[in-house]
Amino acid sequence: MNTTTAAHDHIVKSFDEEMSRLTGEIAAMGDLAVKQLESAMDALGKRDSKAAQRAADNDDALDAQERQISDDVLRLLALRQPMARDLREILAALRIASDIERIGDYAANVAKRSMTLNLSAPVPLVGSLPPMARMAGRLVHEAMRAYVAHDAEMAHAVWERDADLDTLYTTLFRELLTYMMEDPRSITACTHLLFIAKNIERIGDHATNIAENIWFVVRGEPLIEPRTKLDRTLET
Amino acid sequence: MNTTTAAHDHIVKSFDEEMSRLTGEIAAMGDLAVKQLESAMDALGKRDSKAAQRAADNDDALDAQERQISDDVLRLLALRQPMARDLREILAALRIASDIERIGDYAANVAKRSMTLNLSAPVPLVGSLPPMARMAGRLVHEAMRAYVAHDAEMAHAVWERDADLDTLYTTLFRELLTYMMEDPRSITACTHLLFIAKNIERIGDHATNIAENIWFVVRGEPLIEPRTKLDRTLET
Repeated sequence: MNTTTAAHDHIVKSFDEEMSRLTGEIAAMGDLAVKQLESAMDALGKRDSKAAQRAADNDDALDAQERQISDDVLRLLALRQPMARDLREILAALRIASDIERIGDYAANVAKRSMTLNLSAPVPLVGSLPPMARMAGRLVHEAMRAYVAHDAEMAHAVWERDADLDTLYTTLFRELLTYMMEDPRSITACTHLLFIAKNIERIGDHATNIAENIWFVVRGEPLIEPRTKLDRTLET
Repeated sequence: MNTTTAAHDHIVKSFDEEMSRLTGEIAAMGDLAVKQLESAMDALGKRDSKAAQRAADNDDALDAQERQISDDVLRLLALRQPMARDLREILAALRIASDIERIGDYAANVAKRSMTLNLSAPVPLVGSLPPMARMAGRLVHEAMRAYVAHDAEMAHAVWERDADLDTLYTTLFRELLTYMMEDPRSITACTHLLFIAKNIERIGDHATNIAENIWFVVRGEPLIEPRTKLDRTLET
């Protein structure tokens, strides 16, 4: 092995190492976002405003992590000047970190709205939300597994399963409208529950964005298929 | 001038030219997104479902433009391997195109919800939405002007003025809740109006994201200030 080849191998290895470290950081960020959603839902269920405030405050950590990852991406691009698949991978990292940061924003909004809900009488329908939130959390978690494993098929499964979340959202949307009509005193609370449900549905959309980015990295072409988008609330 | 300098000048000029073309395309994309919002609001005001369907369908054009810009960015990064401010500028282009694509999604959602609203009796309160939409459109338009001019101060003004949009949103949110309580038959329609108002408020948030990216390109540091976030609907 001559010096040039050795130097080249060294650079290649370093890029892969740095990229692998970045992927690990992003996966940890994704897991933290899921935990944030779980904390927010837990606070909502227990009507615990202090826990909700903590969940909302913790969002700063995700924002800081996203800024750190953006800085790392800029540095990697400038130092390594990656090409082809490496370049796709590093830009996907930037986009995925941005999607996770948004997921954290939605979780924080759930926490803030739960504090507002604690100002009025409990609405029994809140019970339909946890299964929706658990499904959204699983989608994000599976998206992170697919990301670390560079598994396009697993990413595609996440992308497809978002339709189930849309179906749950549509059902809950209709239940909440009916509830408001039957008991107009619940309108303010139900409106916040509607927005909470919408936040969770949007978390699923970001999980599909992440899945699309994984597909693009692994396959080198965009995932464009007729999407089974089952948000039927617009037909209500 | 020796050959090396001439070649270097040529490359530098080409990058600036390509970046300037890209900026122009993104600004045009931003103007199209504003027009999409105007078309959606026009269709909403006239209860014209055909026009609303056209506005919703036109969103495909913005999606295609974003994919084109992403491809251009990948190509520019691979061919030119830009550094420092050039690198910040090209990554900001990617983020800004993504924000505009989201603005287009929100405009399309306004159009789709207006079609749903046409299935039931008109709700007079719809009159409060156009000033909100006009303000959001102006914020996006000003953000595009700041982007083309590389004007950090103009971008900062957009970032600050989003607070006015939040205030309008809060007022409308409360009006809609009151209206629903007084006339429970209007609940379904008012819920869609609430989501339309939220879409417009989110468009303002994306204008501020764009402003933050412009600031970062021009100043080389993130715009972090205590944000005057006046969404008071969580106190309702």
